[in-house]
Amino acid sequence: MNEPHYWTSPTGKPLPYWGEQHFQDAWASRHDLKEIADGCRLNVLSSIHQAGSGHIGTSFSSMDIFVAVRRFLQGEEFLTGVSLRHIFFSSKGHDAPALYASLHAGGELSDEQLFSLRRLGGLPGHPETITPGVATNTGSLGMGISKAKGFVKAQRLTNPSARESVVVLLGDGELNEGQIWESMPGAVKEGFGEIIAIVDSNGIQSDTWTNATLPMGDVVARAEAVGWHAMECSGNNPNEVVAALEEAQRDPRPSLIVARTIKGSGISWMESFPEDAQYYQFHSGALQEPLHDLAVATLLPRFGGHGIDTLDENAEAVLALDHYSPKPRPESMVTVWQDMLVTVMEKNESVITLDGDLSYDTGTHLARGRFPERYVQSGIAEQDMVSMAGTLALSGFIPFVHSFATFLTMRATEQIFNNASEESQIIYLGFLAGLIPSAAGFSHQAVTDVGIMGSIPGMRVFEPSGLAEFEWCVEQALGHKGPSYIRVGAVAAVESGSATVGHLNTLAEGKGVALVSSGPLLTQQALECRNQLEQQGFETPAVFSLPEITRPLDETALDQLARFNHVLVLENHNPARAKHFHIEIQLFARTVSIHRLGLEGLPANGQPAEVLSRHLLDPQSIAAKVVGLAGSSFVAADNALTNGDTYLDRESH
Amino acid sequence: MNEPHYWTSPTGKPLPYWGEQHFQDAWASRHDLKEIADGCRLNVLSSIHQAGSGHIGTSFSSMDIFVAVRRFLQGEEFLTGVSLRHIFFSSKGHDAPALYASLHAGGELSDEQLFSLRRLGGLPGHPETITPGVATNTGSLGMGISKAKGFVKAQRLTNPSARESVVVLLGDGELNEGQIWESMPGAVKEGFGEIIAIVDSNGIQSDTWTNATLPMGDVVARAEAVGWHAMECSGNNPNEVVAALEEAQRDPRPSLIVARTIKGSGISWMESFPEDAQYYQFHSGALQEPLHDLAVATLLPRFGGHGIDTLDENAEAVLALDHYSPKPRPESMVTVWQDMLVTVMEKNESVITLDGDLSYDTGTHLARGRFPERYVQSGIAEQDMVSMAGTLALSGFIPFVHSFATFLTMRATEQIFNNASEESQIIYLGFLAGLIPSAAGFSHQAVTDVGIMGSIPGMRVFEPSGLAEFEWCVEQALGHKGPSYIRVGAVAAVESGSATVGHLNTLAEGKGVALVSSGPLLTQQALECRNQLEQQGFETPAVFSLPEITRPLDETALDQLARFNHVLVLENHNPARAKHFHIEIQLFARTVSIHRLGLEGLPANGQPAEVLSRHLLDPQSIAAKVVGLAGSSFVAADNALTNGDTYLDRESH
Repeated sequence: MNEPHYWTSPTGKPLPYWGEQHFQDAWASRHDLKEIADGCRLNVLSSIHQAGSGHIGTSFSSMDIFVAVRRFLQGEEFLTGVSLRHIFFSSKGHDAPALYASLHAGGELSDEQLFSLRRLGGLPGHPETITPGVATNTGSLGMGISKAKGFVKAQRLTNPSARESVVVLLGDGELNEGQIWESMPGAVKEGFGEIIAIVDSNGIQSDTWTNATLPMGDVVARAEAVGWHAMECSGNNPNEVVAALEEAQRDPRPSLIVARTIKGSGISWMESFPEDAQYYQFHSGALQEPLHDLAVATLLPRFGGHGIDTLDENAEAVLALDHYSPKPRPESMVTVWQDMLVTVMEKNESVITLDGDLSYDTGTHLARGRFPERYVQSGIAEQDMVSMAGTLALSGFIPFVHSFATFLTMRATEQIFNNASEESQIIYLGFLAGLIPSAAGFSHQAVTDVGIMGSIPGMRVFEPSGLAEFEWCVEQALGHKGPSYIRVGAVAAVESGSATVGHLNTLAEGKGVALVSSGPLLTQQALECRNQLEQQGFETPAVFSLPEITRPLDETALDQLARFNHVLVLENHNPARAKHFHIEIQLFARTVSIHRLGLEGLPANGQPAEVLSRHLLDPQSIAAKVVGLAGSSFVAADNALTNGDTYLDRESH
Repeated sequence: MNEPHYWTSPTGKPLPYWGEQHFQDAWASRHDLKEIADGCRLNVLSSIHQAGSGHIGTSFSSMDIFVAVRRFLQGEEFLTGVSLRHIFFSSKGHDAPALYASLHAGGELSDEQLFSLRRLGGLPGHPETITPGVATNTGSLGMGISKAKGFVKAQRLTNPSARESVVVLLGDGELNEGQIWESMPGAVKEGFGEIIAIVDSNGIQSDTWTNATLPMGDVVARAEAVGWHAMECSGNNPNEVVAALEEAQRDPRPSLIVARTIKGSGISWMESFPEDAQYYQFHSGALQEPLHDLAVATLLPRFGGHGIDTLDENAEAVLALDHYSPKPRPESMVTVWQDMLVTVMEKNESVITLDGDLSYDTGTHLARGRFPERYVQSGIAEQDMVSMAGTLALSGFIPFVHSFATFLTMRATEQIFNNASEESQIIYLGFLAGLIPSAAGFSHQAVTDVGIMGSIPGMRVFEPSGLAEFEWCVEQALGHKGPSYIRVGAVAAVESGSATVGHLNTLAEGKGVALVSSGPLLTQQALECRNQLEQQGFETPAVFSLPEITRPLDETALDQLARFNHVLVLENHNPARAKHFHIEIQLFARTVSIHRLGLEGLPANGQPAEVLSRHLLDPQSIAAKVVGLAGSSFVAADNALTNGDTYLDRESH
């Protein structure tokens, strides 16, 4: 009866899964919760495999908790389609595959929806309210208890006698964030005993052990000292979790349950992570094909299914697991930076590197190996990291501060401003800048960073397209007495010219229309657009890149652009006082027509090609615009004045 | 020998103070530390009186700590001019008068500097590194331990054997901020035993008792559970504080000393605050004249001086102290709002008010009295407040979120973005928006808020000049499905027309030049400029206000402006994609000359008239510009393109 169904992936590979009917039967026959959780694990595995990315380790460590919470909230009698929205949500968010699997197991999502993970119009990479059963957008860590307080307060006002539990799932890495500790006292003051926060305490953060990243001390004692009821339980035993939830519900105080779990729980080789290991391999990303097959082969027999035949080869792959080296990653701006940072630190003994638990994703791990003394691992504590950088700068060092662009520029904005008010030289690097990676959802797509960082006094804002430009930006930043911000795209670098690169960088000659881009993603789109037009026999536009984006252009650059009839500016961020603004203001009087293609409002979520097309930033859309312009007479600038007017239709992403 | 000197205030009033020589003698003769602290208290009192504003309560509660820290760090042998910079700083910052008094007592500041508090070129209202002896800019709460960590790390790298203590003073209200708790674990991980954080634990926050605002639980237990060494001491006994500091220094762990103090310590009627009281009267602001005189009369006899003669009258004033009503405040946009909010909540039962320990300064105290159920006091916990507002909005409420503009828009930026990604209707109100009050320093001057909030998807940004416009803005925000931001100036409202006020609001007719302003401060300057020109027989400019500032103008508004030869836009914020941008882009093609006067880079600190003039935003400077324009032929827009190029000279503010 538990024999899985098979979903056919776009590659034709059959992906085993538990369907809606499996779960209905399992709940109805009061199956062991652990078995239901394993059914969900199978679904996590298959949906991530189809999506091509997703966080497996945390999804597996928390899977039993998700199932236990559902049992706790819905009671013994399972009713298909009972929505737990507003009384349960995951704050850590990157366990979205597990969340979706549990929503699917509860009848809130269909099989089709389960397999729409990370697609435009499908299930976002981090939870968003657009999905049935999702209470609130998460993925930016630390907001969970605050959000729970809002739900409780609303319930108190609208339904004073209800006092229903509001359960929020946190990550133990998430406890690094100050907002968690900021939000706890208010729950005591308000007497919000309805709140149960449960920590998926797997002990491993983004790169490695929490204790090696930012140890949280005695979490139970910390919570109790604030006035919370706090306890521990075994988080991979769903029955124990249910019992803990019941105890928490009985206690009149807000409760914190530290659920001890194992990251990757359910698959032995995902569980095994030596104490001195440095790189947990299953934090993010889909499994390599043989490992995926092996994981499936491990799970299937639990449901009476059979394994796969080629275990020997797979076993080799597993034996090759290396916990002391990072996964190889494709060439990108990150791999460009990881080497460049080492060179910068070699040449300049004042440079000190700070990272917020993203050493591998920001490419700082090589610098850490070479210069451990001049490396600070701050944990998921961006405010702390930025303020510490401030006094390091006051003491004569040049801090290079790393995180994802959204977290760095929005979590620590006041700290960045405070440092700027000291006019200190600090170089901030924001990764995943712009629309891509779009599969991870709003929390990871930096579209506001240029507007924000461009507002900070003295801040120079850079966006290099490739190696040569990156080097130029760093050189400029090292020569600037105040703060600088370098936004780093997530995709492969383009060939950005020689070391003589200047302010406006000519990447391809052309006529009629000048494309002005910044950053690897849109510069690549521009070059590709030019290729397509050339192949189709159209007049080819010129392609320029502009590595510094919030500063007026110099006369040379303006003269270069004024030779064209039309200038089409590409911006991988929402409208800001950045290059489109400057070009428009400065060129208007020269009767050049200036246009913009760029992001606006909320970014679309989904696979890269889908969302580029959605925002008219794929080569074909750019080409259509170029051809349209070439055929047009002078038209006053468009697309510049719609801020606040056009927002993406929620239905379509 | 201790008989004070007298400083002559600009009003002619003699202000008693201890001079440099008093302190040299006192240290040399190993005076009782308490007496030295009282000498400092006298100086705090007089310097605040001369400045017209400043935080007396917290300066007095922490005064003994400042003196004790100096003794601890400098040892028994006092040497004039030993700078404690980099090894001691105050994180809470609003105790700046006490800090300056202690720097003066240590020979780091002259008598003249002591009496330059809150003046352009003088001592900033919150500490800034421009002042000798000040290690880092503070005033935005919660950054202290992070900053101490930066100093320790720098010391470890540059002078590995030194291991000098780094002492940071915190407020107990400051412990509300999550960054405090975020920053503590890293100090344990790095083994930064050099750090001693000492809390001025006076139990009273901005408005009232900490326990009624946001109780912090067992702070000592919380710190110990993170791995810190923690203890309590009596903070108004300098010898006990010195002993605690010595014990902390001996312990290899980072230490937290909770120094129990009394707010206003040293003056009995400032110390007395009943348990159920709601408004502590001496948090901020200079004392009323009779109370100032009485405070002086209380302190003087301690130094062998004599009191003043008219104690009877003063006694009456003291007896009139009311701890259950707020201080009367002059009419301003805050008094406009305090009544309007009550009306809004009366009319709309979905509106819920949130405040971050600034109920009196944001005018929410009346609404709290009327609708206690729909009022959330979040404490100094902006991130928590904003995220809680997010789920209240998801639950059908319309949250009005209040704080000072800098704190709200920069401390909780990612939380605001997260809410915006849910497309929720939330109305944020940022107070002290813009250049004024300029005496409080960078941390309180919101010049980046328009750039930041204007970058958030779906955000409408308003800046009303007076009552009618404020009502229009709130009406617009209540009709907008997404988020809105209303920046509220700190000064008196101007007469902003009738209820028919529209997008571009005509305040005064004129010819030749159109002044376009927003907010009460610059609109008042514009109107005053027009008066001056009229009196001097010049052609009078028209004055318009624009209450919504980040949205393009409609055709009607453009037609109104296109009648003029010149448009001069006034902006009380740094350049952003706001009204100057839109007017420039939209009117350029109509050959109107467009100019901007506005803030740029860091705002000047000092008294209002001084800093307005410094930024060319006083009526005379505006008038000079208007006259210049009227005499000029068409000139391409200026002042729009200097972002990043012109920063205020540090020397001059």
